[in-house]
Amino acid sequence: MSATFTPQQLRARIRYGEYEDNTSGQCPGFVQGNVVILTADWATDFLQFCQFNPRPCPLIAMSEAGEPILPELGDDLDIRTDIPRYRIFHHGELVQEVRDVVNHWRDDLVTFVLGCSFSFEEALLADGLEVRNISEGVNVPMYRTHIPCRTAGRFSGNMVVSMRPMLAADAIRAIQICSRFPSVHGAPIHLGDPSLIGVKDIARPDFGDAVSIRPGELPVFWACGVTPQVALEQARPPLCITHSPGCMLVTDLPNSRLAVL
Amino acid sequence: MSATFTPQQLRARIRYGEYEDNTSGQCPGFVQGNVVILTADWATDFLQFCQFNPRPCPLIAMSEAGEPILPELGDDLDIRTDIPRYRIFHHGELVQEVRDVVNHWRDDLVTFVLGCSFSFEEALLADGLEVRNISEGVNVPMYRTHIPCRTAGRFSGNMVVSMRPMLAADAIRAIQICSRFPSVHGAPIHLGDPSLIGVKDIARPDFGDAVSIRPGELPVFWACGVTPQVALEQARPPLCITHSPGCMLVTDLPNSRLAVL
Repeated sequence: MSATFTPQQLRARIRYGEYEDNTSGQCPGFVQGNVVILTADWATDFLQFCQFNPRPCPLIAMSEAGEPILPELGDDLDIRTDIPRYRIFHHGELVQEVRDVVNHWRDDLVTFVLGCSFSFEEALLADGLEVRNISEGVNVPMYRTHIPCRTAGRFSGNMVVSMRPMLAADAIRAIQICSRFPSVHGAPIHLGDPSLIGVKDIARPDFGDAVSIRPGELPVFWACGVTPQVALEQARPPLCITHSPGCMLVTDLPNSRLAVL
Repeated sequence: MSATFTPQQLRARIRYGEYEDNTSGQCPGFVQGNVVILTADWATDFLQFCQFNPRPCPLIAMSEAGEPILPELGDDLDIRTDIPRYRIFHHGELVQEVRDVVNHWRDDLVTFVLGCSFSFEEALLADGLEVRNISEGVNVPMYRTHIPCRTAGRFSGNMVVSMRPMLAADAIRAIQICSRFPSVHGAPIHLGDPSLIGVKDIARPDFGDAVSIRPGELPVFWACGVTPQVALEQARPPLCITHSPGCMLVTDLPNSRLAVL
């Protein structure tokens, strides 16, 4: 059994090198975020991409240029040190994985924090629904679709979706629950026949792991936060910093705060 | 073009024999109700059946025994005269269709008014969704399922569902819209494979008319107000009075008043 930390405590442990793992399951009840850091000359396009595509890119917070402190997301939160692992991309290519970005920080860096599926998975579990990737202990399966995102400047691409199989009655309940949380991807965008959104083989996800689909279950598809990562790889900005997959920014916001109702 | 009447005007026309048709499409924006009238000795069981099975039997109003006036549903509303056509059942058998029930009224009759799909179909149309039975100008297809209702005294039976085919994205939107209206059947109870709820042949509804299902569409199933009618036929109370199919009670309640959010 691992000890339970508050978000502030976990961020402090991360900052001082005492925690470097995946944040899944840490600080239950609190919002975790996908992080994208870009130079100011690319930030305007990316902001517009998020505004145009809120389902895959639900923006929770955006910093001023050069400002590493994000008080609206947490007490004493420093984006340069408070994520377990960071990835640094040059022109869309991963060049380095690091434990902090203090030495990479610049006065023109803008931080974007996007909602993540952990929040709605917690709401589904709290309602008694099964989340297959959690019960099977794997990463959620994710698929490239043929659904185009709306292009914003240099950012474009097709939507990536995550999939959780459910019986129809559970899928209907999941739609109700997730509709309350538009800033963590909201309601599913498709269910049923995968080929209708360009998914050719449900057993072979493009990202993450396959999960079993039982008789009578429908695959249910949510817009996924990997969508902006794919758009970033295609846009190839000279510099981009993100969290490493699964190593999210843990905030002080209660998940319930994201509920619109 | 027919003139548009207020609910009060339409009820007055019905009362004075000037209107005897189906009420579908009349008084848009106002709640129409299914009506069941039983003797007091059967009313307690039926009330419990509605409480146990709110999806197919969403109770909007219930009268005192012998009281034909329902002021909570409309100005000057008299349940004995304000429905275009009534059906009278003895021991579950239809014995008569009449234009009013003034001469059948008794001091021990209790009126139940249940929500009807007209309200949520209007909400779906207002959102820009297609409702196939409306666009094809037929009655909605309805099916017996193998989903049991919870038995209450002498009332029991399986749920009857209505079906409207939709593309997945429209089905998801319909779930969101209908979730706001629990007193008119609420969210769908199933979508996808009809056999999972005991519907053997989607092309042959048990009630109403078949509608076309286009490529890529899912059948979406809602709990249906025919469910209590089937339970009434099986229970065979000595006396039961209902509206004739499609000839509903038109109330003064705006449909929006039924929205829980």
